[in-house]
Amino acid sequence: MIRTFHITRPDGRLRFMLVEKIDNLTKPKGSLGRLEEVALQIGLIQQSLSPVLRHPQNIIFAADHGIAEEGVSVSPRDVTWQQTLNFLSGGAGINFLCRQHGFALKVVDAGVDHDLPYERGIIDKKVRRGSRNFLHEAALTWKELEQCIEFGAEVVRQCYDEGSNVLSFGEMGIGNTSPSSVWMHLLTGISLERCIGAGSGLDNAGVQHKYEVLKRSVEHYRGDGSTLDIIRHFGGLEMVMVVGAMLQAAELKMLVLVDGFIMTNCILAASRLYPEVLDYAIFAHQGDEAGHKLLLDWMHVRPLLSLGLRLGEGSGAVCAYPIVDSAVRMLNEMDSFAHAEITKYF
Amino acid sequence: MIRTFHITRPDGRLRFMLVEKIDNLTKPKGSLGRLEEVALQIGLIQQSLSPVLRHPQNIIFAADHGIAEEGVSVSPRDVTWQQTLNFLSGGAGINFLCRQHGFALKVVDAGVDHDLPYERGIIDKKVRRGSRNFLHEAALTWKELEQCIEFGAEVVRQCYDEGSNVLSFGEMGIGNTSPSSVWMHLLTGISLERCIGAGSGLDNAGVQHKYEVLKRSVEHYRGDGSTLDIIRHFGGLEMVMVVGAMLQAAELKMLVLVDGFIMTNCILAASRLYPEVLDYAIFAHQGDEAGHKLLLDWMHVRPLLSLGLRLGEGSGAVCAYPIVDSAVRMLNEMDSFAHAEITKYF
Repeated sequence: MIRTFHITRPDGRLRFMLVEKIDNLTKPKGSLGRLEEVALQIGLIQQSLSPVLRHPQNIIFAADHGIAEEGVSVSPRDVTWQQTLNFLSGGAGINFLCRQHGFALKVVDAGVDHDLPYERGIIDKKVRRGSRNFLHEAALTWKELEQCIEFGAEVVRQCYDEGSNVLSFGEMGIGNTSPSSVWMHLLTGISLERCIGAGSGLDNAGVQHKYEVLKRSVEHYRGDGSTLDIIRHFGGLEMVMVVGAMLQAAELKMLVLVDGFIMTNCILAASRLYPEVLDYAIFAHQGDEAGHKLLLDWMHVRPLLSLGLRLGEGSGAVCAYPIVDSAVRMLNEMDSFAHAEITKYF
Repeated sequence: MIRTFHITRPDGRLRFMLVEKIDNLTKPKGSLGRLEEVALQIGLIQQSLSPVLRHPQNIIFAADHGIAEEGVSVSPRDVTWQQTLNFLSGGAGINFLCRQHGFALKVVDAGVDHDLPYERGIIDKKVRRGSRNFLHEAALTWKELEQCIEFGAEVVRQCYDEGSNVLSFGEMGIGNTSPSSVWMHLLTGISLERCIGAGSGLDNAGVQHKYEVLKRSVEHYRGDGSTLDIIRHFGGLEMVMVVGAMLQAAELKMLVLVDGFIMTNCILAASRLYPEVLDYAIFAHQGDEAGHKLLLDWMHVRPLLSLGLRLGEGSGAVCAYPIVDSAVRMLNEMDSFAHAEITKYF
């Protein structure tokens, strides 16, 4: 039995006062562009004219994928556990970004096919050693789906208890652009071909092969087409865990920074279950993976950044954090025209 | 006599070693996108595999514009001096951004039509109380042009002596999108109409009026069409000072963060005088001012951000600094594959 989340939209009654505050800061109206949009969103979420960002954390969920057996990724499967360990050493891409922007980093084993050293700080939420190969069978059982959702939610509740009100999510899982493309295809109706890209570096022949594997997988699918059944059948473990994490974050009225292609598919699935989750989401980065821009356009959202990142790990989300922070500082630190005694611009 | 700058291109021999270092960091090749481009550029400028950003400063040059008499801006002229004072109080948009990103802020009176309190920290480089109205006469004399270039260079040398190796520039000057549009038109050949936008908030009729004023101004122009004569004839004082500042920064091999529409016109003019200045420039932000995207495309450059800012003051440049900082941290803080003992991705 999948748990229920109680996610409500922020009360809109504060909107007028927030807009009035923003419009009376010492700048031409609207001249801080997207900072003003983000400030309004966060003010509404926190129901405050002076919101505060507390203890940001980036949570990386790691897992292996059965579909990787079909040669859909350029990277060897061992990279999943090797890179997961590398996050602990501080030398990965996400590490310097977290240090730079004051993020704590949590690394969660959602289902890596390797014995990881939990004593070194990796959080053990391993549901199984990799999802099943969805070319031949469902990636997850219903029981495993339920566990993933609950484990994702648990990690977020821990962050909440630690005082966080803003989270970003990332992933590490060789092969995980494949389930992402299938989720996108089945949840949006966009043709499979347009949902598929090069992942961490496939050439054209590799992309074609990936397309054929995923096409056959979709043809073999005999489920009921519900969101839950789609994410269960195609996995992966870390992605479903992120869906649970995002829903829990929204229930707790935490801000969710959405990273690249894979995380966008997770919030897509989450929003199919609870549309209100989108009120808590800030789309951080448009990556180069083919299909990502298409999906963002389909969702009518515009990320803050477009830097050509395709690293995963939450890197795009953490990179965008200073802009989110700027939006909050704008509300808290800028003078009003009245206070500064400046002729109000029109 | 306008002074000569000795600007040389960075030595390209380090390029191969920089690319090799970047490609061996623990990430799929190219997966940090624009961070990798920026890292390469800064490594070349500093001739180092481990570059360092030191004491970033944002310098705002402020001046009034004779052309503002023609009603080309929605904002009253007094806003120039009022907002210049407001920078000192810490309550302007640029102030919270500078605090957030560790920038020192310098405010330079390039030619504000008001007696400013220099004892409060404004740097006195006032050449005259506002440029002349270029609808009727040249905005600046040759002597004033020379002073502006030299004063801009002086302020940058001071920053250099204070230990800075990265600067951004901003402006405050009611009416200054007008000379910017004329510079762009005359220096690129793009039709005047496409170089003109709403500035701090003109409506359609206002934009049409601005176009007519600028069109007549260009028709009246009888100069020799050289870059120096164009920026002299159309001013303004703060913009020419920025040209001098940018050239001095490049001569000293400092990194220059280029803000929005007005600053892009300044680097355009600077690059017409010394094309090598572009090697030291990072384009930070694409604003909403009509013509900015057009100009950036014409220059074949892509800014790091596009957040719809149109505040000026260097705000877009300072907002982009964390990304530049990330690029440098990537080079200095990420592990190599060999060191991390991870199977190299292809």
